Formats: sequence, C-alpha cells, structure tokens
Amino acid sequence: MKKSEFSFIGDIAKTFAKLPHNGFEPIGDDCTVLDMGSDALVISTDMLVEDVHFLRGASSPEEVGYKSLMVNLSDVAAMGATPTAVLLSLSLSEATQGEWVEGFMRGFYEGCERYGVALVGGDTTASRDKVCINVVAIGRAPMSNIKRRSAARVGDLICVTGKLGASSKGLVDIMFGDLNTPAAKIHRTAQARIAEGKLLGEHDAVHAMMDVSDGIASDIKHIMEQSGVGAEIYLEVVPTDYDIRFATTGGEDYELLLTVAPERFVEVAEALRAATGTPLTAIGRITEGGELVWLDNGAPAEIELQGFTHF
Amino acid sequence: MKKSEFSFIGDIAKTFAKLPHNGFEPIGDDCTVLDMGSDALVISTDMLVEDVHFLRGASSPEEVGYKSLMVNLSDVAAMGATPTAVLLSLSLSEATQGEWVEGFMRGFYEGCERYGVALVGGDTTASRDKVCINVVAIGRAPMSNIKRRSAARVGDLICVTGKLGASSKGLVDIMFGDLNTPAAKIHRTAQARIAEGKLLGEHDAVHAMMDVSDGIASDIKHIMEQSGVGAEIYLEVVPTDYDIRFATTGGEDYELLLTVAPERFVEVAEALRAATGTPLTAIGRITEGGELVWLDNGAPAEIELQGFTHF
Repeated sequence: MKKSEFSFIGDIAKTFAKLPHNGFEPIGDDCTVLDMGSDALVISTDMLVEDVHFLRGASSPEEVGYKSLMVNLSDVAAMGATPTAVLLSLSLSEATQGEWVEGFMRGFYEGCERYGVALVGGDTTASRDKVCINVVAIGRAPMSNIKRRSAARVGDLICVTGKLGASSKGLVDIMFGDLNTPAAKIHRTAQARIAEGKLLGEHDAVHAMMDVSDGIASDIKHIMEQSGVGAEIYLEVVPTDYDIRFATTGGEDYELLLTVAPERFVEVAEALRAATGTPLTAIGRITEGGELVWLDNGAPAEIELQGFTHF
Repeated sequence: MKKSEFSFIGDIAKTFAKLPHNGFEPIGDDCTVLDMGSDALVISTDMLVEDVHFLRGASSPEEVGYKSLMVNLSDVAAMGATPTAVLLSLSLSEATQGEWVEGFMRGFYEGCERYGVALVGGDTTASRDKVCINVVAIGRAPMSNIKRRSAARVGDLICVTGKLGASSKGLVDIMFGDLNTPAAKIHRTAQARIAEGKLLGEHDAVHAMMDVSDGIASDIKHIMEQSGVGAEIYLEVVPTDYDIRFATTGGEDYELLLTVAPERFVEVAEALRAATGTPLTAIGRITEGGELVWLDNGAPAEIELQGFTHF
C-alpha cells in the first residue's frame, strides 16, 4: 500500500470531518459513539480477507467464523460497552459456498450464543476468488462508562489484561506448518475480553482504553497521539510466555490496553480479578511529551519495535 | 452458490432468531431497527465485490465510490428514515492502493456531502486480488415513520417511484462495450431516493416499503412473503423507457417499491411530486393468497419473470 493503514485512515478522517457529524463522535476509537441520552450506542466494523487475515488451509471454517465475531466484539468491549448485536456481510467464492460457509456460520453462531449477541442484518454475495468477511458490532453502555483513546493522563499506569504474544507466536507456528501448537490454537480462537471491558468501563479510574489488535508497540501510539502524551514501557514486566517481540509487536491478542490512575491501580486490578479471574498488569507509565520510550530493567532498550501491519 | 442468496439468508435468520434480540427487530427488511424511545435507529450493511458488482474497466473509481454509498443510503431511505452516518470497510489490491482508492474516496465524499452524511468509522486492509467494499449506513426516523416489508394489506396499490429498467439496460450496454449510453451512465451513478423515502415515511397511508435492488419481480416477493399476501402487477403501466424485461427483472434501479391505501394514493402521489418532483406510479394491487400474477392489458402474461441475482 502506498500509505500505511494508519496514515490512510488519518487522511480520510480529516477529510470527512468537514462534514456534519450528526450526533456521532469523530473517528478515532475502536468504535464510533452515538449519544442517546443516558445511554450510548457504539458501533465498529472490521473486514477479514482470505489469505491476508486467515488461510483456509490453516483454520477450520468454524474457527474463522468464531474469530470474525470475536475481533469485532473486542472493539466493543474496548470501549467499556457490552455487545448486543452484529451484522455480517460475506462474499463467497465457488469453493466456499457449501460446507465451508456452513462451518463458518456454526462458529459465528457459537460466539453469538456464548455472548448473547443478536445477528440483526447482513448481506451475502459471490466473489470471483477469495472470501471476504465484514462484521459490524453494536454495543451499549451508559455514556459515562465509554472509554476513549484520548483520555490518558500524565502519570497514569499503562496496563494490559491477561498475557501477550501467544497469537503472533501461533501465527508463526502456522506459517511453519505447526498447526497444533498451543499458541497456534490461541491464534485461531481468540477470546474477546467482554466481561473485562464492561467491568473496566464501570471504573472511573480507568481513563483511556483500546484493544490490542496490532501489538502494543503500535497500539499505544494511538493513545499517545489522541491524548497528546508520551509513554514509557518496561519490557521486563510485560506479561508473556513467549519472546518479548511477540508480546510487543505481535498482533491479534485482543487483550485490553488501558491507562489507570496510579493510586487506584490495586483497587481496579483486584476488582477485575475478583469478577473475571483475569489479571491486570501495569507495564508502563504515561509521560509528558510525545515520545515512546522502551526500558529493559531501567536501561533504554535497543530493539527497534514496529507494530504489526497487514501491509 | 448451492443455495440462492435469499434462501441462504432465510436459513441464517431462522437459526439466529433463537438467540436474544436485544431490542433489535428480527432480520427481514432493508435495515435492522433499534427502538430508542420516540426515535428509531436503522442500520443496513452491503458488500460490493470487484468483478461481481462492478468492473474496474467499466466504471471510474469516483463512480464506484459514489455508487457504494448510494446503494446503502437507498436501504435507509426505503425504511422511511434519513441517513445520518456511514462506516466504510475497504480491502484493496496492490493495483488499487494509489490513484484508484483516492478516486473512490472522492466519489464517496461527494455523496456524503450531497446528503449530509457523516463517515464515522471503517477499516482498510490489503487484498490479494480483488477489491471488496462494505458500507454500513445508519439512519434515524420517528418510530412511527418506519416502513416494513411486512405491512402490506390486501387491496393496497403497489407503487414505484420514478422509472424502472435503465440501470439493467445500462449494464447490458456496458457488457457489450457501450460505456457511454445514457442507460450505462445511470447504471454507474444510481441516485438513492433519500428525500422521497423520508416523505413517504411521514405518510401513514404508505404501508410496506423497500428499495428496488434486484428488480420488482424479485423484490415484490419479499413484501408478499413477509406480509402473507399475493400481488398482481399490470405490465402495461410499469413506468420505463426500455424493454419491459429490464423494468421487471433488471436490478439496481434503487427506486422505492411501496404499497399504499388505495383511497389515499392521489394524496400521497401529489405530496411526493410537490415536495420532490418525483412521480409515483401505481403498477398493481395487493391480493389475498400467496400468488404473484402478471397481467398485460388484462391478459395473463406469458413471459417467465425471474428476479436478478448475482449468482
């Protein structure tokens, strides 16, 4: 691509911002937000393309269906909202119009059932060659619970739920033909942090929040840019069972990345663990200025860290 | 495709209807509806695939961008609602990542500007081969204005806005290499009936409504099935400048197809013409039973009429 995904989206957002917003917030978070009085509606959209986001030879159709749903529910959870409904568009090649799509729909249904989400619309059509999937997820929350990328404050602790790196380690395993490693399984069946997103939304000590879809090295920059702050991250405490490069630049973990008022970190982490069993780990701090600094046991880290991109 | 688009959607809708609806209406109309108290939100999604819905050699990128928007705004208008916002997902092949997508976005922007619609979210990604476009359109209307396919009543007049058939005649022209006929131009630059949909939504004499995307021969069946009624259509009064087959089985006209209480047809048609300049033509009548009957000057028509399908 001539421009990276992010600058391209930046240009589009800037151009279209000249038009009336009609009650919606401007582009910039995992979802758009429509204020409906006491309640807010959040809406996200994500496209998955065969041979770019998934390989039909490496994932079962059930896994692709389930994951297509999860990556979108994750966007809703990252806003502090609870997903209520989805719309699904599918373009199907000749080879996928029978058993494959039925398996896909079984996986999609399993996720909808697990999280109480309604399928409320969609579109199916043919494609000449590759499968293309678009999922729209809709969620609701009290307006005061909605978390945005622009809300980080200097001094906040940068935190993540769960552990990082398994999904991208799994992708590498799959690329080398090891389809059945624990990490490969995690890559194919990501779980969105639905209950965690809702609970963290309810805490006003949680300031900015988003999901980890491109790796924290890339994702933290969105929070920095939109909040006008810097960040330092301590590599030695990033929670992972794998190489630190997977945990920082690998994508598709679908954990939550958030900033928390430091004096209330323990309270938030204990509430999260009590309600969901999921650990919250502080991995860094929001700083003044616009720099992203990586520290390894206090020393500047030398590895160049680039976020994962599909281009 | 093993099943047609419609039966496939029918199966999916039936399966997922077992899950909680979370305030949304079940699948069945051009958009899903969320009741927000006095107001309703309507949401539609549509996918367009290169070489299935458009040919890059036959349409300019501006035309593809404009049309991608219009087909979705048309779904919102068909509910009696006013479009307020859209989300756009694009997967772009190598060849389309520069000038082509810039032209596409210019066309998309032109439509957003013309109809006062905000772009509030999206996703861009690579594709290996073909361009895939997904547009989500969001609209609002008072709940009492929302028109559904299930609301037709026996005795209603079946009506259409404007004229039919130009778009499919234009598609045939394009397929034969005549890119610059008036019909070919109409095919590439469909106009959604935004003002007309809003006005018709305000009239309680208008019962069922949808947009003409697959041809009236196919589209009227959705109204019949969902309303549990039959229909007869009088071929000699179907408004068209082209062969009657284009006007009945050709797709992508994006006119509105609606049923109107017969004693109030003149009132509705005059209000529509006064406000928008668009004619409303009565082309048939809703009947008891489930049959679709075509009449040509009173005699049963012999042409077999099949709705347009992408499969």
